[in-house]
Amino acid sequence: MKRIVILGSTGSIGVSSLSVISALGEDYQVLAITANRNTDLFLKQIQDFKPKYAAVYSEESYNKIKDQVPPHTKLLGPGIESLVYLSILPDADLIINGLVGAVGFVPLIAAIKASKTVALANKEPIVMAGRAIMDECRRWNATIIPVDSEPSAVFQSLENVDSKSYYKASPQIASVLLTASGGPFFKYDGDLSKVSPKQALAHPRWKMGKKITVDSSTLMNKGFETIEIMHLFALPLEKVKIVIHPQSIVHSAVEYTDGSIIAELSNPDMRLPIQYAITYPKRMPSPVKRLSIADMSKLEFAEPDLKKFPCLCLALDAAKKGGSYPAALNAADEIAVNAFLNGEILFTDIPKIVAGVLDKHKSENKPLTLTGAAIVDEWAREEAQELLRSGNYKKIDC
Amino acid sequence: MKRIVILGSTGSIGVSSLSVISALGEDYQVLAITANRNTDLFLKQIQDFKPKYAAVYSEESYNKIKDQVPPHTKLLGPGIESLVYLSILPDADLIINGLVGAVGFVPLIAAIKASKTVALANKEPIVMAGRAIMDECRRWNATIIPVDSEPSAVFQSLENVDSKSYYKASPQIASVLLTASGGPFFKYDGDLSKVSPKQALAHPRWKMGKKITVDSSTLMNKGFETIEIMHLFALPLEKVKIVIHPQSIVHSAVEYTDGSIIAELSNPDMRLPIQYAITYPKRMPSPVKRLSIADMSKLEFAEPDLKKFPCLCLALDAAKKGGSYPAALNAADEIAVNAFLNGEILFTDIPKIVAGVLDKHKSENKPLTLTGAAIVDEWAREEAQELLRSGNYKKIDC
Repeated sequence: MKRIVILGSTGSIGVSSLSVISALGEDYQVLAITANRNTDLFLKQIQDFKPKYAAVYSEESYNKIKDQVPPHTKLLGPGIESLVYLSILPDADLIINGLVGAVGFVPLIAAIKASKTVALANKEPIVMAGRAIMDECRRWNATIIPVDSEPSAVFQSLENVDSKSYYKASPQIASVLLTASGGPFFKYDGDLSKVSPKQALAHPRWKMGKKITVDSSTLMNKGFETIEIMHLFALPLEKVKIVIHPQSIVHSAVEYTDGSIIAELSNPDMRLPIQYAITYPKRMPSPVKRLSIADMSKLEFAEPDLKKFPCLCLALDAAKKGGSYPAALNAADEIAVNAFLNGEILFTDIPKIVAGVLDKHKSENKPLTLTGAAIVDEWAREEAQELLRSGNYKKIDC
Repeated sequence: MKRIVILGSTGSIGVSSLSVISALGEDYQVLAITANRNTDLFLKQIQDFKPKYAAVYSEESYNKIKDQVPPHTKLLGPGIESLVYLSILPDADLIINGLVGAVGFVPLIAAIKASKTVALANKEPIVMAGRAIMDECRRWNATIIPVDSEPSAVFQSLENVDSKSYYKASPQIASVLLTASGGPFFKYDGDLSKVSPKQALAHPRWKMGKKITVDSSTLMNKGFETIEIMHLFALPLEKVKIVIHPQSIVHSAVEYTDGSIIAELSNPDMRLPIQYAITYPKRMPSPVKRLSIADMSKLEFAEPDLKKFPCLCLALDAAKKGGSYPAALNAADEIAVNAFLNGEILFTDIPKIVAGVLDKHKSENKPLTLTGAAIVDEWAREEAQELLRSGNYKKIDC
């Protein structure tokens, strides 16, 4: 039996994880769930899954629900401490980290130091300090199973590796073909400065959270995934090739040195990579719709357009520079995307803010420590806020 | 270092194997080669590769070359005995069986009983008596690595299996998607009774031996591969789905129970699956042209047309009936294809002869023994010859 802790149970990944676990049956049990502000859904999840533990991050949420949690579940106190506690629970066989943004950092490190297996959807920590995190994984013999569909596809396309050895660079890998749907604006030829948050949130293939959906529309998300894949699979930047694939059927592929490509294909449905991370190394039946021959007969692949999507250009540049650039990139993007979602800036201002922050950034030319990442994160957020206030955005040259 | 025995070194698979081994460098050495009638090429191969042993099957060839073999190579006597001797050489790390037709049967069994690893291109023995052969593999802890591009793609798309465990039925496999180029007549709408051997031999994608090229044009080859895959991967007929894919880029795929499909893609070049079988479980660089994004952007998939290609229909029916039907199918087809290549019968007579033999066949309803397969093989050949002589062919109803 697998006992599972879900960090971020009311988010997109958390809700899908609970739905997958329900369908899998008795061998998979929800040991603990955590949320932040969606207390109604959280209380319902507690009723439905009867986890042993539950926690809410926000103090306000805690006060709101503390008298409503039934006795079968122990509600822990608010704050990051409870997330850490649940990430290292001796009873936990799997920690699903479905948190959004940098908040997932501390619980992730805690889980790794406790030698846990982590199903990781929260890519920001890896983007910020991937090298340090993977070093910790090796040191503590922890396992990260990627949950995002693309790194999951890479993980599924690896051969002769077990979950703990894939952190080592394999000389047999010639490249990873990292596919990208291209987002809602792949074929859009209107003025991108005029697109609304609603348009950016209308992703053609994937139903995801808001932040990642906007990041998909700017292709920043593909830049983050490039950095994520470099760290998870110990590959240099030049071995990660981004391929636009609007149908989102091939979720990524590994090209080996002999020229063979091993690819993972399925209908785009997050329940699949989530379930794979939960049942790994086993496969279990899933309610996800099967691919038909017709589905496979209309696959397109193209090179990405860096001029049209300068966020990708900025991300690849940060990946190349390394050091603390990816951490600054991530923090600046989070601020810029929020400002766009709040109607404060234009869609095309997102890369300008990020570029402004990266321009001012001075990175030490060595791998970032975990503390270093937190400092850079804070600095870049402030710098991005300052840029927002000044309105003095940089012109992008990609 | 891997020391390699190549049975059938002057055939299509043998020549490619030698070219692959040359390119791989010193870690891969040719220990022995065998041929039948192409003595000029064989002598040149002996000069080039300096194998420790060589053998020719035909007595005539033996007499022709016996005084021309240089002293670095020991020429064994003619006949099946030498092929058996080389298949069980204690020094041999890998036996590449690139023989064509039923002649490969006896050396294959010998290699299996010696617990060897066999790179098997010669599918007829598996078609004839796959169940008995796989039982022997399990008993003697021998390994068969498929060389044909399609079963190789399935082998490459398997996960969490080592080479010796894949014989067990995996409940995690929902189906194998066995791709077929469709051959030269996939889109042909002329009268198939009028096509010449030259047209049937003009395969659009693969350069192969004559027999297998004709079998590809009738889709009989895909029927044989269905039977081969059922045995190699311990799958029932209903889990093998044939998919026409004219570009021959996806060489086959495995669909898992969760709905994920793992596929192997490359340019169609036999050197790739041959090299994989030689270097397995490692991958090594190869001179084969890499797939480009453009190559991947024009993939078509379709259902096979059983009315147009009755040989496939007959093969699937024999696969379903089991017992000794596949052995009778294989033998009858070999006779019919030879007759077609010799201009004795029409292209559309091939399935009629095969159907005539299968109609007369009485199979015992139990797995075929190895001796039983040889008896059925002989019976079916005689029956097919008899049909050829009589000209009294059956009308096909598929």
